Amino acid sequence: MGHVTIADSTPVKLCVVIVGLPARGKSFISQKIVRYLSWLSIPTESFNCAANLLKILDKLNTTSNELFTSDVSNINDDLLVENRKQTLNQILKWFDNIDVCGVAIYDGINGTRDERNAIEKSLKEQNIDTVFLESYCDDETIIKSNITDIESTSPEYSTSKSMEDTFKSVSNKIHFYNNAYQSLSTTDEADLSFIKLINFSAQIVLNHIDSYLKSRIVYYIMNLHVKNRYIWLSRHGESQYNLEGKIGGDAKLSPRGEKYSVKLVELVNKYIPNHDKLEVWTSTLKRTQQTAQFLPFPQKQWKALDELDAGSCDGLTYEEIAVKFPEDFKARDDNKFEYRYPGGESYRDVITRLEPIIMALENQENVLVITHQAVLRCIYAYFMNVHQEESPWMSIPLHTLIRLEIKAYGTQVTRIKADIPAVSTYKEKGTSKLGESKNSINVMSGSVISGITDKVIK
Amino acid sequence: MGHVTIADSTPVKLCVVIVGLPARGKSFISQKIVRYLSWLSIPTESFNCAANLLKILDKLNTTSNELFTSDVSNINDDLLVENRKQTLNQILKWFDNIDVCGVAIYDGINGTRDERNAIEKSLKEQNIDTVFLESYCDDETIIKSNITDIESTSPEYSTSKSMEDTFKSVSNKIHFYNNAYQSLSTTDEADLSFIKLINFSAQIVLNHIDSYLKSRIVYYIMNLHVKNRYIWLSRHGESQYNLEGKIGGDAKLSPRGEKYSVKLVELVNKYIPNHDKLEVWTSTLKRTQQTAQFLPFPQKQWKALDELDAGSCDGLTYEEIAVKFPEDFKARDDNKFEYRYPGGESYRDVITRLEPIIMALENQENVLVITHQAVLRCIYAYFMNVHQEESPWMSIPLHTLIRLEIKAYGTQVTRIKADIPAVSTYKEKGTSKLGESKNSINVMSGSVISGITDKVIK
Repeated sequence: MGHVTIADSTPVKLCVVIVGLPARGKSFISQKIVRYLSWLSIPTESFNCAANLLKILDKLNTTSNELFTSDVSNINDDLLVENRKQTLNQILKWFDNIDVCGVAIYDGINGTRDERNAIEKSLKEQNIDTVFLESYCDDETIIKSNITDIESTSPEYSTSKSMEDTFKSVSNKIHFYNNAYQSLSTTDEADLSFIKLINFSAQIVLNHIDSYLKSRIVYYIMNLHVKNRYIWLSRHGESQYNLEGKIGGDAKLSPRGEKYSVKLVELVNKYIPNHDKLEVWTSTLKRTQQTAQFLPFPQKQWKALDELDAGSCDGLTYEEIAVKFPEDFKARDDNKFEYRYPGGESYRDVITRLEPIIMALENQENVLVITHQAVLRCIYAYFMNVHQEESPWMSIPLHTLIRLEIKAYGTQVTRIKADIPAVSTYKEKGTSKLGESKNSINVMSGSVISGITDKVIK
Repeated sequence: MGHVTIADSTPVKLCVVIVGLPARGKSFISQKIVRYLSWLSIPTESFNCAANLLKILDKLNTTSNELFTSDVSNINDDLLVENRKQTLNQILKWFDNIDVCGVAIYDGINGTRDERNAIEKSLKEQNIDTVFLESYCDDETIIKSNITDIESTSPEYSTSKSMEDTFKSVSNKIHFYNNAYQSLSTTDEADLSFIKLINFSAQIVLNHIDSYLKSRIVYYIMNLHVKNRYIWLSRHGESQYNLEGKIGGDAKLSPRGEKYSVKLVELVNKYIPNHDKLEVWTSTLKRTQQTAQFLPFPQKQWKALDELDAGSCDGLTYEEIAVKFPEDFKARDDNKFEYRYPGGESYRDVITRLEPIIMALENQENVLVITHQAVLRCIYAYFMNVHQEESPWMSIPLHTLIRLEIKAYGTQVTRIKADIPAVSTYKEKGTSKLGESKNSINVMSGSVISGITDKVIK
């Protein structure tokens, strides 16, 4: 019997069936839900109907462009039926391997009542619950901005020669689907469980949101924003414990850590635009508050930002842990995400308590979060979509200001080095020695939704 | 600078203006929101328009019954305008004393667009944000059941002679307001920020839910259920640490604690109906899991149910704390809710991490939660609406199964004593000695929404 987080409290198989015309931000919403639920350790996967269609068309030596401008509607229909069947089968097959709780996202147009009823029926036969999620949009500005995003991110348009090409292709596709399209309706589909977003989230209609997991998805979507913005992150300055190689505790900064707290003011002034509106969040531990001590901005202390609690190992060095608790030491290396220190926490536990922070950060811009190595790994993993097995092994060096530039379809990272030396607190797997991570850049740039670059400014 | 929980992350003054005809569950929803936000330490108060009207009518030596059947509509109008003005003034006055964050609930009919616009305008002038919350209902079964609830809880009908009287009075009132009533509309009131509940929560329309706090209120309402149900609570059996008067730790059960874990099976079989569907939640600590060891039901371990972390005081007796940390000892007695053990937690911290548990419990029935003294105080405080200053001082004795019977308008508590002696772990204010609380029954029965009785079965 393992320990339980909120993710496991609803043993359920749920399929979120996306509904919407092209350029309604369907894939953006799908990917955000995948990222959020995966981060909460709920197995979640998105199945993209359009990607499957491309493969079918490839075999037929045709393109989606030809399909959506073709007049031979019978052939089209057969193709599309085949395409839907394929996607649904992928989903059903995926659920075969899900034991307790899993969420599949059926990312497609699903524009007619008949289609939706057929999908719901097939899922119900396998005891899979369904919620439809429509992105309805009649605001031309939003649609145009979505097409611009599609152009740079969708595989379907990666071969388009120009923005005009993409606009034309997408318009054809919209036209193709528009005739038969039926928006979700509380009168004609009164029994369906659905979420209808009107012009992103200006208006939302919820029909029979009858489970905890569904309400969490709604809550998350309500807190999404598409506005481009920055979030700033930093570890505390080097602490006395860092110098001594000890973990945990509530030590003060080392002299070099003190220097970083002075330097940080300079970095903020130089690199953070609109820093007059900046808000600084720290943990309740001395080393983060000392790091923020010279920043003349409103500050908030969050208990939820405290370092991963090392329980009985608090105040020990990795060498001491390896000697005193050899089995724990090995168990942690084997599964660092799930391993919980005796009387302390695991990475999974930290994520559970960080969830409200993530929700607050989704609503915020101009925040500088000064916190700890493990906590930053978890926050970073959310924004950069890092897999939970990798996230505890990421290298987040001391004395570095990290800028996350959050855009609709990806997060770009810039690291600004303060040029004040500090010890490394990175422990490689299978050793108790501290040293620089070899794969830090790879890990940091490897697994984002899209469009990430990881720049280091020295 | 104090520490910060999620409650403080949105510095905002918000007025939730309730909209709905009589018998739409307006006061139920208002009181639930008050309870939830207060529990999260957000100052929240509900202002009941009907209660103010009763006072006005009292002065005029008339009754609401006469008002709502009267034909002299001019007089009525004046009265109602005066009534609204009074309620709004109360709210504005209340906000004068709110510094950072506060939520007022304007619990009234507010059935016309003109009224709503006037209210929003007055609030805006004082920099108070508004969200309208309509309970729209055309399901006669729900309305009838609401009238039954009103009869037993509303001061307005406390003098009614019979259920028929109440039905007639409420019907008159509904009729009186129905003519002019305008439901919130996404076309005619497109710019308003509102939540419209249709037949409780079968369907929900959200319009411009543009702040974090509003989205949290929506999330909470989505998770409300009116179904009567039971939640079962118990502390772990007496532990070795309890015997030694020590706090914290991860001790095993004492021999008497072991006895309780056996006895608990008997109590569950005898007192819990449908216990074949029971689910048992414990913390990750040994003493709760040992207490659950003989219960043949699905079990979940929650880190969030772990005892309040006593930090540096973990493993000490209160006498030792009084000697070793005299200032902390006194500070804790002075403000037990806010006091945080060095390196540990406060009651406020515990509530923050319990919030997902509360949301899960609002969705659940047939759960037995086996956890710790401080955690149970917090869970209990939520369901029984105990004020945050009182909750850390409640007595929750060992070896007792607690049944919460949760109904729409109140929670009824039954305590079933296992008749196995145990030490007291109740520490009175201003002493380091442990002993029975003198006011346990008073506290437990004093501060619920309504209809509570606290029965002890020995």
